Amino acid sequence: MIKPTIPKGTRDFSPEQVNKRKYIFRTIENIYRLYGFMPIETPAMENLSTLLGKYGEEGDRLIFRILNNGDFLSRVDNDIIQSKDSTLFASAISEKGLRYDLTVPFARYVVMNRHNITFPFRRYQIQPVWRADRPQKGRYREFYQCDADIIGSDSLLCEMDLLFIIRDVFQSLRIPVITRINHRKVLQGLAEVLDITSQFMDMTISLDKLDKAGWDGVEDELKKRQIPDKAIQRLREIIDWNSLSDYEKLKNLNEIFKDSATGKEGLSDVEYLMNLKGNEEKLFRFDLTLARGLNYYTGIIIEVVAEGIKMGSICGGGRYDNLTGLFGLEGVSGVGISFGADRIYDILESQSLFPENLNIQTQVLLAHFGENTLHEAFRFASWLRQNGISTEIYPHPHKMKKQFAYADKLNIPWVVIIGEDELKQGMYGLKNMHSGEQKTLSASEVLSTIKKSG
Amino acid sequence: MIKPTIPKGTRDFSPEQVNKRKYIFRTIENIYRLYGFMPIETPAMENLSTLLGKYGEEGDRLIFRILNNGDFLSRVDNDIIQSKDSTLFASAISEKGLRYDLTVPFARYVVMNRHNITFPFRRYQIQPVWRADRPQKGRYREFYQCDADIIGSDSLLCEMDLLFIIRDVFQSLRIPVITRINHRKVLQGLAEVLDITSQFMDMTISLDKLDKAGWDGVEDELKKRQIPDKAIQRLREIIDWNSLSDYEKLKNLNEIFKDSATGKEGLSDVEYLMNLKGNEEKLFRFDLTLARGLNYYTGIIIEVVAEGIKMGSICGGGRYDNLTGLFGLEGVSGVGISFGADRIYDILESQSLFPENLNIQTQVLLAHFGENTLHEAFRFASWLRQNGISTEIYPHPHKMKKQFAYADKLNIPWVVIIGEDELKQGMYGLKNMHSGEQKTLSASEVLSTIKKSG
Repeated sequence: MIKPTIPKGTRDFSPEQVNKRKYIFRTIENIYRLYGFMPIETPAMENLSTLLGKYGEEGDRLIFRILNNGDFLSRVDNDIIQSKDSTLFASAISEKGLRYDLTVPFARYVVMNRHNITFPFRRYQIQPVWRADRPQKGRYREFYQCDADIIGSDSLLCEMDLLFIIRDVFQSLRIPVITRINHRKVLQGLAEVLDITSQFMDMTISLDKLDKAGWDGVEDELKKRQIPDKAIQRLREIIDWNSLSDYEKLKNLNEIFKDSATGKEGLSDVEYLMNLKGNEEKLFRFDLTLARGLNYYTGIIIEVVAEGIKMGSICGGGRYDNLTGLFGLEGVSGVGISFGADRIYDILESQSLFPENLNIQTQVLLAHFGENTLHEAFRFASWLRQNGISTEIYPHPHKMKKQFAYADKLNIPWVVIIGEDELKQGMYGLKNMHSGEQKTLSASEVLSTIKKSG
Repeated sequence: MIKPTIPKGTRDFSPEQVNKRKYIFRTIENIYRLYGFMPIETPAMENLSTLLGKYGEEGDRLIFRILNNGDFLSRVDNDIIQSKDSTLFASAISEKGLRYDLTVPFARYVVMNRHNITFPFRRYQIQPVWRADRPQKGRYREFYQCDADIIGSDSLLCEMDLLFIIRDVFQSLRIPVITRINHRKVLQGLAEVLDITSQFMDMTISLDKLDKAGWDGVEDELKKRQIPDKAIQRLREIIDWNSLSDYEKLKNLNEIFKDSATGKEGLSDVEYLMNLKGNEEKLFRFDLTLARGLNYYTGIIIEVVAEGIKMGSICGGGRYDNLTGLFGLEGVSGVGISFGADRIYDILESQSLFPENLNIQTQVLLAHFGENTLHEAFRFASWLRQNGISTEIYPHPHKMKKQFAYADKLNIPWVVIIGEDELKQGMYGLKNMHSGEQKTLSASEVLSTIKKSG
């Protein structure tokens, strides 16, 4: 018999881990709902025609494909079989793939259901996605995404909602964070001012390395990508403004953008959000070096990192002008964010920020001494459950010590002992597994003691 | 642009459907937890070595296989490529498959984690499974299973717990049900008495048709399977006992089982459960014709149908003596049940049993008239959310009529109107979208009015 294993990059979750993960999902979901977001769910499998070409060449390679069922080979051209071309062949024997993110299925959903959707449509979706990435620490082949998007409105109030949600989620999880925003058009304006418009992507890809590699790393990258020295020097001066206050940044940029309509548009959105922010100082910072997801974001971009923790972003998002255009529905603007549940989990774990009671599942173990008290045990367990107390009956009349050891291992805080003598007087033994203290109490005293303990 | 579609047999779920499904999952999960069951989750993908051979030949064919990534063809023997044998070929280009049920992954989990598990282990698992079955009404290629199992104890108290859970779940969902139990060994005893031991499976497969095809259908099937006429006549007489009381059935069977040790063992288990049942009359009925899942169940079998509704079972389960034996861990007895969420959904929908408030998501829409009251709108929305009221701000200063129409379509029961004049006096307009009534109230009056409405 071979020892069973699971596919690399995938994980089993133990009860403790599931409870901790549920705590994260529940926190995010509750806040999404408080802001009026509605849940949808889409199938794990999508047609390859939906998935392919949406994530770049690299993305296409990372999609898990589902083999067609039945005698799939009989439907493949002999030429393809003989060609031994895996890519060609894969297309001939698979029509479906596992979803790679929640955004493309959401766009597909909106297009398919557009006549039943009231816009602006605020949806959230918390489901797993699959990527055939090389597994490494913190990177898995199956992981959850927790997305919220508002689609069908270009109002910046939508961005505000998402920024408030980010604040509320991390406040609720007790993780101090820094939320930074920027705007694609601010970056485009920069490229115009530096006279490197045609090298916009080169500039942003280089800028994106600032956090990890510092200015020296960015400079190397810019040179490698043949950005002129003059532009690099100017960029360095502008980037230095990032240490100024947000309003000073705005002022300086407004000056250099006097000939860039695009740059001014971007700044105007940023300024509008800054004015709306009011005294919510920590809601976000304007970071003119932030450059993420620019192959699809067209407006505001958002990125969140945990304060003082070396780790990538734990939440991010932005506005995209034409997501549903991929599926033939043009002109629908949207904005969305996504929380990274696995990284959030790691932070909560390493900083001991998970609530303690997540680890308590069963509250009461009813000890079992034999047939005579069994009816009463079932009755009493039923009554405790009706009062919301999670209760189980130990299934064997084992020695008391063994039953206590079971409660101990499972972190069960209370053991109820039904003795024949006590029963006659309507009394029950209640043992506190933490202190070891044992008392003889009436049923209602048992209940109130347990409830008082939380 | 081709209209996007989803793979046949899969489904998108709208917000209303997700909320209804969550209601079912939440109900089942809460009750599982009240009985001390702990959640685990396993990956969607399992190694094919884990899955194949566990569900019979038909099952193997219905497993969705994941194509190996990269240049998978280069790793396939030329002979296999030339053979054009789909089955052989599939094994050469795929190593993983989507899970077919939750039981086999659970057994795999228990074996892999046996040193960290405290037995008896009470686990629940609510996750989707995938089967390449031909889609038809009520049968999907992706659907959820809601399983609970107790593994590592042969005590019949475990069966009792599961029977109580079934009662509590359907009471909570307000679906009247009939729960029937039988025992594999009672059926084996029957085969012994009828002198058709070698045709045990033929007998049970035939018996299983009783519900759908009546006795005539069973008789045809028995004849087709060459059960002797004498045995068929005797079986008919015994089956007629099913209309007697459970205790009369027991008495009659005890008599004919006087030479069948196996039959007596089965009866003794059934009798034990009947005695424990006490005055919980509706907890279960003993049905000596019940024959399900007998390729893996070895003890008590359980089946639940909705009273007065023509539909298959909506919950089922039983005891299996050696599930983990498949993965090399012998002698671990377990018992489990599984709720059929899709059928339960259909019943709740057709009988209008879903709670009404599931359809209310956002409770308050804050109308938007322009920049001047926007800060106050954000402040007020934030305050409502802190008080647990799901609130959204309409993102555009559209005409009032349009904003009301949006609230109406989304079933939002309240609209709050912040007017500049009222604001000076700290007052807010509150419109009840159901009655059309509009009042001017203080903030705390707004909150209490909304809270009172539920």
